[in-house]
Amino acid sequence: MTILEKFSHLRVAYEQLRSLGSDPFTVRFDGVLSPTEGLREGRRTILFGTNNYLGLTFDPSCIEAGIEALMQSGTGTTGSRIANGSYDAHTRLEQALADFYGRRRGMVFTTGYQANLGIISTVVGKGDYLILDADSHASIYDGARLGTAQVIRFRHNDPEDLRKRLARLPQAGNKLIVVEGIYSMMGDTAPLREIAQVKAEAGAYLLVDEAHSLGVLGRQGRGLAEAAGVEADVDFIVGTFSKTLGSIGGFCVSDLPDFDVLRVACRPYMFTASLPPTLVASTLQALNRLQSDPGLRARLLSNSRRFHSGLDRLGFRLGADATPIVAVVLEDRDLAVAFWNRLLEAGLYVNLALPPATPDGSAILRSSVSAAHTVQQIDTAIGLFAAVGEELGVLSPRPLAAMA
Amino acid sequence: MTILEKFSHLRVAYEQLRSLGSDPFTVRFDGVLSPTEGLREGRRTILFGTNNYLGLTFDPSCIEAGIEALMQSGTGTTGSRIANGSYDAHTRLEQALADFYGRRRGMVFTTGYQANLGIISTVVGKGDYLILDADSHASIYDGARLGTAQVIRFRHNDPEDLRKRLARLPQAGNKLIVVEGIYSMMGDTAPLREIAQVKAEAGAYLLVDEAHSLGVLGRQGRGLAEAAGVEADVDFIVGTFSKTLGSIGGFCVSDLPDFDVLRVACRPYMFTASLPPTLVASTLQALNRLQSDPGLRARLLSNSRRFHSGLDRLGFRLGADATPIVAVVLEDRDLAVAFWNRLLEAGLYVNLALPPATPDGSAILRSSVSAAHTVQQIDTAIGLFAAVGEELGVLSPRPLAAMA
Repeated sequence: MTILEKFSHLRVAYEQLRSLGSDPFTVRFDGVLSPTEGLREGRRTILFGTNNYLGLTFDPSCIEAGIEALMQSGTGTTGSRIANGSYDAHTRLEQALADFYGRRRGMVFTTGYQANLGIISTVVGKGDYLILDADSHASIYDGARLGTAQVIRFRHNDPEDLRKRLARLPQAGNKLIVVEGIYSMMGDTAPLREIAQVKAEAGAYLLVDEAHSLGVLGRQGRGLAEAAGVEADVDFIVGTFSKTLGSIGGFCVSDLPDFDVLRVACRPYMFTASLPPTLVASTLQALNRLQSDPGLRARLLSNSRRFHSGLDRLGFRLGADATPIVAVVLEDRDLAVAFWNRLLEAGLYVNLALPPATPDGSAILRSSVSAAHTVQQIDTAIGLFAAVGEELGVLSPRPLAAMA
Repeated sequence: MTILEKFSHLRVAYEQLRSLGSDPFTVRFDGVLSPTEGLREGRRTILFGTNNYLGLTFDPSCIEAGIEALMQSGTGTTGSRIANGSYDAHTRLEQALADFYGRRRGMVFTTGYQANLGIISTVVGKGDYLILDADSHASIYDGARLGTAQVIRFRHNDPEDLRKRLARLPQAGNKLIVVEGIYSMMGDTAPLREIAQVKAEAGAYLLVDEAHSLGVLGRQGRGLAEAAGVEADVDFIVGTFSKTLGSIGGFCVSDLPDFDVLRVACRPYMFTASLPPTLVASTLQALNRLQSDPGLRARLLSNSRRFHSGLDRLGFRLGADATPIVAVVLEDRDLAVAFWNRLLEAGLYVNLALPPATPDGSAILRSSVSAAHTVQQIDTAIGLFAAVGEELGVLSPRPLAAMA
């Protein structure tokens, strides 16, 4: 067997998928014109499958900050944070994040993936326990695998199951519970009040990954912990710059007094080049915009409600909560593939998620709403979902007026 | 024991290190003015501890390409390569890398760390063997740990030891040998001809990480495999954009027919936001500059020789080869810390590497040379090494004329 033959089953499945239409995992945009519009094969496509929640990737002040940093400090640092790659801007961004979250310490990573990988593989070790929501993101699972703590999974969003599993663990050893603010596929939020209570009872530590909830939930946009009023119970907030903040990179903030020791202990922080100045600058400016313009978040929420209720009224089976991530759940894989292809042909891009990457073995059309979507784009998207849903027999036909 | 107390020995050691002078792992530059000059605590500091081999971070055409992409496509993609994060430029960069290396396929990752992590953890699996040079970079070791193949280490740069260890393995299972073009700490190169021969005899696969050798070695700057004339024996070339190419990101190129299946199998590729357009654009332009201006590489090599022979003549114990990475090996840790601090106070920044991060338990002052260094900067650096070396008793005093 040659070295990549172990993936032949995957290759066959993938080829079969591609035979059904466009390849959902290599969609290429020839140009992206705005947070909500791309060019694909020569035609305009409405983007409804990004994580561009506040539409900041095209914010003039973020672009301007990025350009200024490029001109002033060059294209990159060519060094890790522990060598020559710490510029004043990196520490200013760390301070800004710590201030935003009201924490003593902040650490910036080069990707959000590496933030989860690094924090989770490092803060718990031999003799410790890592207790993960079963639907955790790949970066969390990979952090668990890279580290040496014993890994226990609890049923998705089930505080009772979490409680039971914690009760079975011995007294000795630190316990770190890891949950996400908003789960990226279904758009549901963690029951964080209950989880915080279980955590406190068990004397465990709690990490919340606010990747999809930063800039989305909470009065100040800090995420689910703020919205649930349990920030004091969270020991580590992890997040990313590649969604609401429109760049790449990740962070962790914490009040733990020894937190800074991670700078010389956490390998995915230490052994990678630091973020280029242009990304640090645009991220800092995006964090400013998030704080100075609450109207962005208000628009995001109103857009999300409009899109969610539009699809809901049509009769689609949706993910639980009305967050900017709206998952249309389809039982049948081939149906989902056909639906996704028809939407793309009609000029609407959403994400297709198939088992085994999805919870429950279901096939999902994942849409995500942006503050930058116009009401017209939202209604067009709802209309296309309605038309394709009827065409493919997912919805029973109904008068178009019902969508207004 | 609280959660970070497991690092208390490290914290104590780190605090002790800091009590000896500046903190070598949080040096902060208030500004970086060029590839070779930074501002630190209000004064100009010559940068001799970067990986900016061709000095391209301030290349006007690379900056211009980055600015244009920022204005045209925004600050980021807010999506992974397998969702909305593949733009035309990402695939152009992949094609440009494949063309540069004369390979059929290329894959771009968001960091070099994730390129090694992803390729190494994925291409070999259960029942396979991963045979690593003992001095491999952290990203290679982390890839080994994340994956499921059995890991075997061979003595650094010792093809005989590699041969012996391969001979002990059963026939079944794929074997992947991983080596680096230039090792980042000591600056020595792998004996790649001999390793390629051992690989062929054993029917193994070979991965070469050209992170520090891309743009440095080989007639066309492709790295050690080109320089050693064994490119046909290398199955996977991995590299980074954060050194010679002046940005961040990583890549893998290969001729394996099934290579593209990794796009739906390799988690550190799939589950991370793609590179922002500005970084893709400046990287592409840096790759153009590398190919169109061989004078850059000639200058780098002449600068490297000048610096290496200058320190050699002074009597320092140096890493084996005359590559742009020049390691001054000091037996004593405190001496190395003092030396590093004295250089920094005098306006010269180099990297300090201490055990256990170094081979052989030695303490290293790691310098790296850039094509952008002026002869004057190189001679100043040599002069400062001489002065501090004499002051601290590492060198016996000699007339300054010997340095000319």
